[in-house]
Amino acid sequence: MTDPATPDAAAREAKRARLYERYNNTALDSGQRIQGEFFLRLVEEYDELDQEWTEGWLTWIYDLQYNRGILDEKTRILPIVGYCVILDDQGQLPNHMRAAMRAGATPREILEIILQSAIYAGMPRMVRAMRTYRTFMRDLGLLELTEPVFRGDAREP
Amino acid sequence: MTDPATPDAAAREAKRARLYERYNNTALDSGQRIQGEFFLRLVEEYDELDQEWTEGWLTWIYDLQYNRGILDEKTRILPIVGYCVILDDQGQLPNHMRAAMRAGATPREILEIILQSAIYAGMPRMVRAMRTYRTFMRDLGLLELTEPVFRGDAREP
Amino acid sequence: MTDPATPDAAAREAKRARLYERYNNTALDSGQRIQGEFFLRLVEEYDELDQEWTEGWLTWIYDLQYNRGILDEKTRILPIVGYCVILDDQGQLPNHMRAAMRAGATPREILEIILQSAIYAGMPRMVRAMRTYRTFMRDLGLLELTEPVFRGDAREP
Amino acid sequence: MTDPATPDAAAREAKRARLYERYNNTALDSGQRIQGEFFLRLVEEYDELDQEWTEGWLTWIYDLQYNRGILDEKTRILPIVGYCVILDDQGQLPNHMRAAMRAGATPREILEIILQSAIYAGMPRMVRAMRTYRTFMRDLGLLELTEPVFRGDAREP
Amino acid sequence: MTDPATPDAAAREAKRARLYERYNNTALDSGQRIQGEFFLRLVEEYDELDQEWTEGWLTWIYDLQYNRGILDEKTRILPIVGYCVILDDQGQLPNHMRAAMRAGATPREILEIILQSAIYAGMPRMVRAMRTYRTFMRDLGLLELTEPVFRGDAREP
Amino acid sequence: MTDPATPDAAAREAKRARLYERYNNTALDSGQRIQGEFFLRLVEEYDELDQEWTEGWLTWIYDLQYNRGILDEKTRILPIVGYCVILDDQGQLPNHMRAAMRAGATPREILEIILQSAIYAGMPRMVRAMRTYRTFMRDLGLLELTEPVFRGDAREP
Repeated sequence: MTDPATPDAAAREAKRARLYERYNNTALDSGQRIQGEFFLRLVEEYDELDQEWTEGWLTWIYDLQYNRGILDEKTRILPIVGYCVILDDQGQLPNHMRAAMRAGATPREILEIILQSAIYAGMPRMVRAMRTYRTFMRDLGLLELTEPVFRGDAREP
Repeated sequence: MTDPATPDAAAREAKRARLYERYNNTALDSGQRIQGEFFLRLVEEYDELDQEWTEGWLTWIYDLQYNRGILDEKTRILPIVGYCVILDDQGQLPNHMRAAMRAGATPREILEIILQSAIYAGMPRMVRAMRTYRTFMRDLGLLELTEPVFRGDAREP
Repeated sequence: MTDPATPDAAAREAKRARLYERYNNTALDSGQRIQGEFFLRLVEEYDELDQEWTEGWLTWIYDLQYNRGILDEKTRILPIVGYCVILDDQGQLPNHMRAAMRAGATPREILEIILQSAIYAGMPRMVRAMRTYRTFMRDLGLLELTEPVFRGDAREP
Repeated sequence: MTDPATPDAAAREAKRARLYERYNNTALDSGQRIQGEFFLRLVEEYDELDQEWTEGWLTWIYDLQYNRGILDEKTRILPIVGYCVILDDQGQLPNHMRAAMRAGATPREILEIILQSAIYAGMPRMVRAMRTYRTFMRDLGLLELTEPVFRGDAREP
Repeated sequence: MTDPATPDAAAREAKRARLYERYNNTALDSGQRIQGEFFLRLVEEYDELDQEWTEGWLTWIYDLQYNRGILDEKTRILPIVGYCVILDDQGQLPNHMRAAMRAGATPREILEIILQSAIYAGMPRMVRAMRTYRTFMRDLGLLELTEPVFRGDAREP
Repeated sequence: MTDPATPDAAAREAKRARLYERYNNTALDSGQRIQGEFFLRLVEEYDELDQEWTEGWLTWIYDLQYNRGILDEKTRILPIVGYCVILDDQGQLPNHMRAAMRAGATPREILEIILQSAIYAGMPRMVRAMRTYRTFMRDLGLLELTEPVFRGDAREP
């Protein structure tokens, strides 16, 4: 838990307030609920580049698409974890794994989505996703991993 | 319902029996339960090409992967509908939409998966999937569609 | 030129009026100006599936993105012709070629975009786009083509 | 074998002669040796669009790349069959399967390339390639296929 | 500006002279004009691997394709920036953004190409390109960026 | 050569023995013969996540697919090197290059596969593969490379 009394926390609160003055508040609420600070960082980056585009993007995705209520959140987000594997998006994969867990998915269910995606996307992309999963779940303290004994380097003698 | 007394039905039963003598029966059961005749046609096609490969493929996917029970069937299959959009697989898309419905998904939920996939896969692939969805659901009698009045042909004068 | 006195034209006008009552008018104006009936057909198809989604999509793409005025229309649309090659979208390719011509691009410039895309997307996708280009420009009466003498069928004896 | 005395054959010879006057002859020789009429059709199509580009393309691929002699022809062409699967190019797949056979590959070896590609490209693209293989080899009289008894249509009742 | 009196500059001049002795000079001129040292580094790398291939590649792309004069340079290069987004090529993206600027494109126009590409390529690839754009333009002193206050790490507590 | 008397070697032998007790031994033999420690590392990683899936995966790929004997090993593996280029898999590329060399391919033949793949996959992916090839072959002592004199950085003044 970050301490709201630190200077960093104050800077975050000030920035958050400025974003709320400027952009679609339903979208900002939804984005934070689903994706936390990962989302706010993205808004911050687009905000410096183009405010008109940022407002349109927030409204289209975080107000409209992510709030339609037709699928429950877990069922809506788990496919996105699989899309990250198929599209080889190792940067967004932790974000969507975390969002899936916030919506009630277990690490075991997320792993299942990754493993089964190999049928459709091929093994190489799944191998990369499996490694992102291992590191991410270990960092969150949700997976205990032993130190690998094989280097796995094709340069071995 | 096909009538088992017709000659076609007899040919199907004979072929089905031969496949059961030759291949992993758990896989054949699962494949039919999930994908119906679409699955049997595929087995039939591979069977004529390579029986060793066919047995390995059936065991890997239809015995092992599709029977693990970690995700409920609806949650397991809905992402595959989205993978068809992202990988632009209009041939398998009706198969996996049908499988999702056998597992309890509604046409509305399937449409939602297709519509949201545009965020990750871009609009052009989603447009093709939307058209496959329209035709498929109309053919199943689950969607009433009016005859379009605009031709949508870029060759219009 | 379609004759507005025909029953078809009347049906089109009635449908168009209903769409204008229902959706973002700036978006509908922009879509027709840029893409003609191809656009209206797409709106018609989405309209039958989900009106909330349709309004959001129209606002995001045809009101906001296609109206920003940062690039002139020809410079904005020519890359999209190339994206169709790279993403292998033979369905949208004629639409965006036509839109590029409405914005002032010549058939020769469009061909150049297609030919150069092979550097980035590989030859196979470019071959398909080249054939779509040939057919489309011939149908519009902008390219005179002789009947090919070679069948180009890998089944030749 | 086509009969050179027929009018069609005369048209082909005349067109071939014009192409030889205009373009890199080593490239034209190589292209025909490797890909037969499929290649000549492609040259014919590009020739009508842009002669400068056509000469550059012929020199780059059919004179230089396809004539380097570093890999034997069978080893050089079999990977291209696999690339067609991975890139989902059902149009070029028969062409490269035929070229591989001209270079000594057997239908069984070509099938093996297709089957193994699923590990890397996923099942859906391999299924399409498998069907193209079946039709192509049957049309060449190299594979005996029985009429499938299962429709494989996801619309079955 | 690098100082030609330094030893590094002398090494560069010597290497450049050797490349001019060996390869298509029109191609070398065009490559440097369009892409600067990025291009020379690439020639240097291929030169050590295969000189025949290098000459063919230079002639095909930098002599022929990049010198046809059918599209003005800005209109020719801006689509390539978009192709880098769609093909997820973060390595070549700065090179082609720089080439577009040499041809007269503004950072604002380049950003517009990147933002609009999300419609066709999906958001995840555009997010990566947006971040490459930010870093690149900041490094060139063309974009002032504040230090982000949100970490954007899905591992946040 | 690693020294079997070191503690690391002892840990490796102990882990290897545990994997042999648990999984398909033909698959483990094949995997090591073809891919060495790279393979064992992968087994180790999957083993910690899901033993049922790991056994199925080993049987499907390393027992069945990699042991069919229809193509000789060199002809079977060289296309996979090309698939890594087309699928942009810089992580598996060294592994499959090494496997191709174990099966008798020369560095020159592997380079040829990479260079020719640009025709099908486009230049950007080939450039990345070329750089992976350079580094890998230099690290193995099979390619002598001079220090590049051009920085190749699009940020040059």
